[in-house]
Order: sequence, then structure tokens, then C-alpha cells
Amino acid sequence: MSVLPVPAADSRAFHRAIRSFAALSRRVILRRRVRGFRKRLKPDGSYVTDADLEAERVLRAAIAKRFPDHGILGEELPPRNPDAEFQWILDPIDGTLSFTHGIPFYGTIIGLRRRGRPVAGLIDHPGLGLCYSAAVGQGAYRNERRLRIRDLASPADLEREVIAVGDRSRFVICGAQRPFDALMRRYPVVRGYADCLGHTLAAEGSVAAMVDYGIKLWDIAATQVLCEEAGGAFRVAYKQSRKDGPTHYGIVCGKPRAVAALSRLFSR
Amino acid sequence: MSVLPVPAADSRAFHRAIRSFAALSRRVILRRRVRGFRKRLKPDGSYVTDADLEAERVLRAAIAKRFPDHGILGEELPPRNPDAEFQWILDPIDGTLSFTHGIPFYGTIIGLRRRGRPVAGLIDHPGLGLCYSAAVGQGAYRNERRLRIRDLASPADLEREVIAVGDRSRFVICGAQRPFDALMRRYPVVRGYADCLGHTLAAEGSVAAMVDYGIKLWDIAATQVLCEEAGGAFRVAYKQSRKDGPTHYGIVCGKPRAVAALSRLFSR
Repeated sequence: MSVLPVPAADSRAFHRAIRSFAALSRRVILRRRVRGFRKRLKPDGSYVTDADLEAERVLRAAIAKRFPDHGILGEELPPRNPDAEFQWILDPIDGTLSFTHGIPFYGTIIGLRRRGRPVAGLIDHPGLGLCYSAAVGQGAYRNERRLRIRDLASPADLEREVIAVGDRSRFVICGAQRPFDALMRRYPVVRGYADCLGHTLAAEGSVAAMVDYGIKLWDIAATQVLCEEAGGAFRVAYKQSRKDGPTHYGIVCGKPRAVAALSRLFSR
Repeated sequence: MSVLPVPAADSRAFHRAIRSFAALSRRVILRRRVRGFRKRLKPDGSYVTDADLEAERVLRAAIAKRFPDHGILGEELPPRNPDAEFQWILDPIDGTLSFTHGIPFYGTIIGLRRRGRPVAGLIDHPGLGLCYSAAVGQGAYRNERRLRIRDLASPADLEREVIAVGDRSRFVICGAQRPFDALMRRYPVVRGYADCLGHTLAAEGSVAAMVDYGIKLWDIAATQVLCEEAGGAFRVAYKQSRKDGPTHYGIVCGKPRAVAALSRLFSR
């Protein structure tokens, strides 16, 4: 076991702080969902709405007030203190397509890293009333309930489990359509629980694993600490820097034996 | 416009009745989810739990008391009054695999037909707190809110919409893996919102359409009336009686232009 990136007392304090920040963004998002929002297409083909921008602004203000020396990297706005030791990584609404279509599976992602190592992470689903949070050494939680992933008894059990995947078009961007199609043919229940929904279902062990490709740093800002603190595994299966924008990642997370088997399928 | 299968006053009464029945099954399912349940594998490879059986018994008792002359066809127990003019069709937990894994996307399906024509239908998601109901001529509702599907402006808009599908393995059973794979390649956002979740997302217009294959009569007992009363379309794209069990269906439902385009893809 490696030494934790922060003392236990700090980890507890960061866990409380990250949950208090999510309460702020949740209020903004639920209000916008009721009152309405404008959306526009970004150059990368994804949408951004008033709700994304307002939620990110609220999170940035709260973090900068509480931790003025920390850095902030958000999906929608420019970085703050990019050389700081502690970096907050924000995706105010992951799954904006779902949000704009009234599908309640979008979520707010908040991660804290110290010199690149995950310290705390949170995925909040305002539309489902579910908040998943974790901090190193403190465990992972769905709302107030501690999460404990039970591993598969054997890799063969994967046949009877649900496997979550992101959208196929994101695998195509990474040239991973062949293992994606092989996965679809090989296992009977592979479901497109795209965006952070698949990550939270994996962190609570409801799905055996989530395989997600063509995603950015802020999409996985909370996933490693959530899965590992719940007793699960997290692997970066693909990482590619790109001239046209931020680095693309492919990850597999969830029950350790499922992650091992699926990582093999994708590394072929 | 064809004549409705029942007078408007009866339709209103059936709508109230079907919602009162769902309140009973919801209570059973939520209690079982907290207190625990036993599960066993059925000969067809799907699971049944104590919660399925208890919910179906509660629904049957309530229907038989209120409408003693009506027939009842349920997934888990033998038919009652199979020759009656009015038939209630029940699936106490559609998506038992989700239920047993703690994925909140399962649902209770209740349908009422008169001489084979849909009169009322309901899909209740106890784990999401969402109940979708409809009766002919009375409209479709999510909880208390009236649903009105907005059609695509043009079939080309389908590229920017979410399309829901059931599990690929169910398409394979019907020999429909080729159009399934073509759909996955053709459209960027095709998601496995399996079981009744895809049907309710289609009925509220959150997804452009749901394509679901290898399903039984009780899986679609509510879908036609929900979609049509919301202003959407419902098509049976595949129907095959089988020696080894009940007839298998393939359906497409949702926004009319999306249903037309996807039905063409699947009828090739």
C-alpha cells in the first residue's frame, strides 16, 4: 500500500468540502431544468447550456473562496493556478445531451488531485437524487451509504452480469470499434449507460464494469477514487494526446475480475 | 379516427383504477428492495424473485376484486378468465436483471385490452419515483404531468437524437442482429436503455425512439397506448410464434418520423 497523498484529517475535510460544493451546483442545475435554459453547439460537436456555465461558475467561486491557492481545471472555462500542487477538476454537466433531452442520467463531476494523484472525487446525479462521493482512505458513498463492491467469484460470471459502455461513436474516435463490437457479440447484456451514469453504476457494483472511450480528463476526474475506495478497480486502457484538443482516454472500471477480463479484450 | 374501444367515462375510470393498482405493487417492490428477496433462474434463462411473485399476486387480487369478470394474463402465474372480453396483462417486474443488480431502471407493466384493442396502460418505475400512465382518449402522463411528444422536424434530425435499444442478444434471438449492428454503426448515439425504461423514455419523447426485439406480449402491454396518447407512434416490426414458448415481438415506438425511419431500417 502506498502512502496516501494527504493526511487522513485533510482527506476527511476534502470529502466534506466536495460534498458541500456539489450541493451548490445541484441547486443551479435543478432550477435551470425547471425554468429552462439556452443551448448551443460547441466546435467539438457537443452541447453547452446556460446550466453548464452557471454551475461551473458557482463551483469555481466556492472552491476559490475556500482554497484560494488551489488550481481549477474546468470543462467550460479557462484554468486557474495551473501550477498549483492541488488541482480541482470540474465537469459541471457530464451528459449534456441527456440533460437537454430530459433524460435524468447526466451528472456533475468534481475531482481533487495532488500532484496528479487522486485525493477526492464526486459524481452527483441531480435528476436521480443520487450523489456518489469518495476520498482516499475514507471510503466511497452513495448519499450516506458506504459502498462495498463484491468481486465476481470467477471471470466466467461476467456472462450473467450487466456490462456498461459509452456511445460506440466515442470508441470509433479512438479506433476501438473492433473490441467494442467484439464485446457486444461476446456478452449477452452490454448496455449503453453512457457518461457518468456508467461510472457510478460501476462504483456501486450494480454493473460488473464500465468501459468508456474517447473521454477527457474531467470525465474521469472522480472515477478512480470512487471505484478504488469502493473496493473496485480502475484502469486506463487507452491514452492519446491530440493536436485538435485535449488528450483522449479509454478506461475500464468496476469489479476487479471484470476489469481484468475486459482490459484484456480491449488491449488485444 | 376509429371509434374508441370503450366510452370516455369508462376510460377515465380504468385510468384511475390502473394507477391505484400500481400503487399496490410499488409498495411491495420497494419494501422487498429494502428487506431483501430470493431469486431463482427460470427455464428461459431469466430471473424471477419473491418480489415479482408477491407483486403479481397483489395486482391479481386487486383486479379480481374490482373487476371479477375480467381476464388476467400475467408473466409469472397462470391465466384467469382467458375468454373474457377485457383482459389485464401484467409484468410485475420488467427488468428483473436490473432489479436484482440494484440498477433502478426496472418497472411494473400493466395493460388493459378489450377484444385485443388497448384501453389503458401503465409503466411504473418504483426505483425512479416515476409512473407513466395512459388511457384511450384521456392522454398520457408522467406522474401528474401530461406528455406531448414533439416530432422530429425532419428524419435527418435523427442523427442528433438519442435512440434507445434493448439488449443485442434479444435481437439475435429474432435473427435481427444485422439491422441492429447497422443501427449502431449508422447513428452516433444509440444507447441500451433496455426493458421498459426505453419504452417510457420514448413515450415522453426524451429519446427519439425505442427499438426492442425478442420481447413478449406483457413487455409491450402498456407501450402502444402510452406512445399513441402522447402523440407518438407504435409499430410491431416483428412477430413470431414459437414452439418453445410465447410469441416474440419486435417493436419500434416514439416520435413518428423516427419510428418511420427506423422501421424501414429493420424491415429491409
